[in-house]
Amino acid sequence: MITQTQLTLPALGRGFHIVTDDIVKALPNLPDQGILHLFMKHTSAGLCINENADPTVLEDFETLFNHLVPENFPNLKHTIEGPDDMPAHVKSVLCGDSVSIPITDGRLNLGTWQGIYYCEFRNQRHSRKIIATIYS
Amino acid sequence: MITQTQLTLPALGRGFHIVTDDIVKALPNLPDQGILHLFMKHTSAGLCINENADPTVLEDFETLFNHLVPENFPNLKHTIEGPDDMPAHVKSVLCGDSVSIPITDGRLNLGTWQGIYYCEFRNQRHSRKIIATIYS
Amino acid sequence: MITQTQLTLPALGRGFHIVTDDIVKALPNLPDQGILHLFMKHTSAGLCINENADPTVLEDFETLFNHLVPENFPNLKHTIEGPDDMPAHVKSVLCGDSVSIPITDGRLNLGTWQGIYYCEFRNQRHSRKIIATIYS
Repeated sequence: MITQTQLTLPALGRGFHIVTDDIVKALPNLPDQGILHLFMKHTSAGLCINENADPTVLEDFETLFNHLVPENFPNLKHTIEGPDDMPAHVKSVLCGDSVSIPITDGRLNLGTWQGIYYCEFRNQRHSRKIIATIYS
Repeated sequence: MITQTQLTLPALGRGFHIVTDDIVKALPNLPDQGILHLFMKHTSAGLCINENADPTVLEDFETLFNHLVPENFPNLKHTIEGPDDMPAHVKSVLCGDSVSIPITDGRLNLGTWQGIYYCEFRNQRHSRKIIATIYS
Repeated sequence: MITQTQLTLPALGRGFHIVTDDIVKALPNLPDQGILHLFMKHTSAGLCINENADPTVLEDFETLFNHLVPENFPNLKHTIEGPDDMPAHVKSVLCGDSVSIPITDGRLNLGTWQGIYYCEFRNQRHSRKIIATIYS
């Protein structure tokens, strides 16, 4: 069985944000067993799974992603929307635009230290839309 | 229900290419609701989703991926197939070898600016095979 | 139909390891057609798919991932667990925490040169848990 819902994330601004609770609250009842697929409908933000406990991890992710894909890199052509735009596209590919999480016993089967990250790579705040598909 | 098809991408040469239309044309009729999973059967090319409008984005992706994983990096061992080979393997992992896209109302539920990218990381042209699995 | 199993990977130590056979042996019988989803329940290790033949590829992956996300990067805050910890979190996002592989004719439909990689980014050996979900 397939169940699909569109969610809107809060406009949290540039950075890495843990949104596990926001997403779980917005979902319908989970089946006993299955998969949750979350898909970001945007090309300069991402979804991934990582450490859910220490807020400095989120800050270090921002630091290291900025190191990986620097702004104002020489010879870029797609610069009309500002220096954060093209790096945001590349970061979203590095991070990924979707996550698939097993559902077991009616709950997301995440590890103890795992949370769902919404990664915003643009300076300007945006409301981002996600399609949640549950198959069971 | 599961439907599976093997597709062959055109040999487009090194770079980032938007292949949304090629893929949609090669698929059977889409179900009302479900997921499309596309899987690249190769280790030096990738699939991802990004900006579908400005061709300079594709060029900047090439520039920034070459910056991320430089050719002729010191002390690499797997060099027999040329300086583009080992970077191509790493780029394919960074990019990802598959995408999963929600299907809603019988169509791919991509955002306005989203297209499917075929990312070729080798200098030599190759015909790349993809397995498309639709579950509904 | 959904079938779910929890697997434990051998504690192989830091590096990139091909675990295709370990995983296939631990799975129940595969259906004729479907998808295998493997999900790493940890935030400093990853799963991906790449070259399955030359062991030096695994060493070069380690070299290039260390180049991508250096240890002792200035101004990191999450350093209490050692210099390999925060880079491990970022590497696990770059690599990805899950893979989805088509199943065709009762077998994983991997390309000739594709194998499943378990990527361990911490110095200390860990036993890593994976949830395998087969849908058909």
